[in-house]
Amino acid sequence: MGGDSGPSVTVPACLSILRRHLTVRLLLVGDESRIKSCLNDLSASVHARLEILHTPVVFSNESRPDTILRNGRDSSLFLAVEQVRSGYAHACISAGNTGALMLTARHLLKNIPGVEKPAIMAMLPASRAGGFAYLLDVGANLECTANQLFQFAMMGSVLVTSLTDKSPARVALLNIGAEAHKGKQEIRDASLLLADCKEFEYVGFIEGNQIFDGLADVIVCDGFTGNITIKTSAGAVKVIQNLIHQSIRKRWYYRVFAFWMKPFLRDVRRALKPSRYNGATLIGVQGVIVKSHGNSDKAGFEQAIEHALRQIAFDVPNLIATRMQK
Amino acid sequence: MGGDSGPSVTVPACLSILRRHLTVRLLLVGDESRIKSCLNDLSASVHARLEILHTPVVFSNESRPDTILRNGRDSSLFLAVEQVRSGYAHACISAGNTGALMLTARHLLKNIPGVEKPAIMAMLPASRAGGFAYLLDVGANLECTANQLFQFAMMGSVLVTSLTDKSPARVALLNIGAEAHKGKQEIRDASLLLADCKEFEYVGFIEGNQIFDGLADVIVCDGFTGNITIKTSAGAVKVIQNLIHQSIRKRWYYRVFAFWMKPFLRDVRRALKPSRYNGATLIGVQGVIVKSHGNSDKAGFEQAIEHALRQIAFDVPNLIATRMQK
Repeated sequence: MGGDSGPSVTVPACLSILRRHLTVRLLLVGDESRIKSCLNDLSASVHARLEILHTPVVFSNESRPDTILRNGRDSSLFLAVEQVRSGYAHACISAGNTGALMLTARHLLKNIPGVEKPAIMAMLPASRAGGFAYLLDVGANLECTANQLFQFAMMGSVLVTSLTDKSPARVALLNIGAEAHKGKQEIRDASLLLADCKEFEYVGFIEGNQIFDGLADVIVCDGFTGNITIKTSAGAVKVIQNLIHQSIRKRWYYRVFAFWMKPFLRDVRRALKPSRYNGATLIGVQGVIVKSHGNSDKAGFEQAIEHALRQIAFDVPNLIATRMQK
Repeated sequence: MGGDSGPSVTVPACLSILRRHLTVRLLLVGDESRIKSCLNDLSASVHARLEILHTPVVFSNESRPDTILRNGRDSSLFLAVEQVRSGYAHACISAGNTGALMLTARHLLKNIPGVEKPAIMAMLPASRAGGFAYLLDVGANLECTANQLFQFAMMGSVLVTSLTDKSPARVALLNIGAEAHKGKQEIRDASLLLADCKEFEYVGFIEGNQIFDGLADVIVCDGFTGNITIKTSAGAVKVIQNLIHQSIRKRWYYRVFAFWMKPFLRDVRRALKPSRYNGATLIGVQGVIVKSHGNSDKAGFEQAIEHALRQIAFDVPNLIATRMQK
């Protein structure tokens, strides 16, 4: 039910996934009549792998997240996470209230033993075509200790190594300078912990202007910094796209070229398309929880589901649990 | 002497400024022979308004900033700031070591009475053509109290109101959400202080994706967050420019169009050009100190000098001092 457009975006995305992956079953949690109004022309195969769990209650984006545990237990968000806790579902994907999703997941699923704090992990484009890096935390923890940052690095590298062929994963700390004396104490302490670690390649501090350079597969920071970073990137992309369109309108002969440039502009737009990088993982809890951006389109919500499917296939929470026991 | 290219960039920029502003005098502090090698074809008018203060010592970008007060007192950076302290110069512009410039300025010039901490204030492009916003702090203080954030807002608004015709200045706090309960305690406390202030228009919290939207003239955050924010923006711009060039190379007919598209691409590049926004001010000390980006080109270093000239013309440090006494 979540996101700016609700079922009109999420349900069609779910149907695409069901058509593409013939072994996937999806349980749609929310208002049955609104969901059903988005279901038309279902093939028998898709219909058989689609279930609806009805609840009329939606926990809105405007609500304070901490009220969900008191008043929101019959909301679609809470019930969806509960399906993962009970073992009925392998993963929960939501475009709803981020804070509420996180609180509910931490409350119902509990942390993987040994994990101090779960983190939200997002994807960023990296310089090589189709390349990307993971950034965490992007909002679960405003402030973090050195050990928490260290654990984020470890969890991120487990995910990267299992989902991609990158081994060892390259890990960096986001900081305001490359030199060892730069930045906050907890970051410098985390750097010492990471330098001792043999399971991944610690590449040191990277600065904000380097996050897209493909220098690291996993970039670690506290949740406040990560949230500002990822949103600033999105803002910069938007401002440049506007600028390109403004420039085209500026002279009449640009407008003539614009017609011929359409496929070119489409290529640029596609490479920058936020939907390609949609789907943030709540990493560190006992289950797979993926948060889609609220204003994501159908393709973006599909990406978020695909992201969850890959984590289920490799049983990422279990890999992290094994690593934490070392 | 500072910056990636040293006098070969800074000296030509100074000459342009002297040609453009006939009442400006510039004192170049550094290695006389290296400076002189960049001075050719000086008109009598320019020559008469150019002085050189010779020192062979350069405080490098690799040095730890805190060593400058012990070992760097004969460096060009220290001597340049000393000219402001003694009253011989109205402002100091440097492309050198940011930390060292800041430490030296705070040590020699002292804070404006009442100012707890000076801040570094940078310019960001805003959505309207040619529009911009000021972001502070971008690196002077890793962590800030509510009152320090409040003072940053006040100093920023004094500068905006004096240098531009924007009155009252619109002030926002950079945060991870728009709602009052979001973010760190010090930011929420600063929000309460700002809401009570009548001298400027407090517009509330803005998120990373909104910083370019022209919602505020002054955007306030701690120095760690601001540094990551401004560098992330620069990185995003670079990655998109690379992408455009990659896309052009991808198909032969794009390359044909690229020839015709040149003026268009130049327009886009010009609007994004970092030199347009070059020149960060150390605000809150008793003097005008402007830091140019280390990799800035001649046009960028000129912008940094222009920025200092405007602050001298309006006597910004004095305006802030007056405001602090209220």
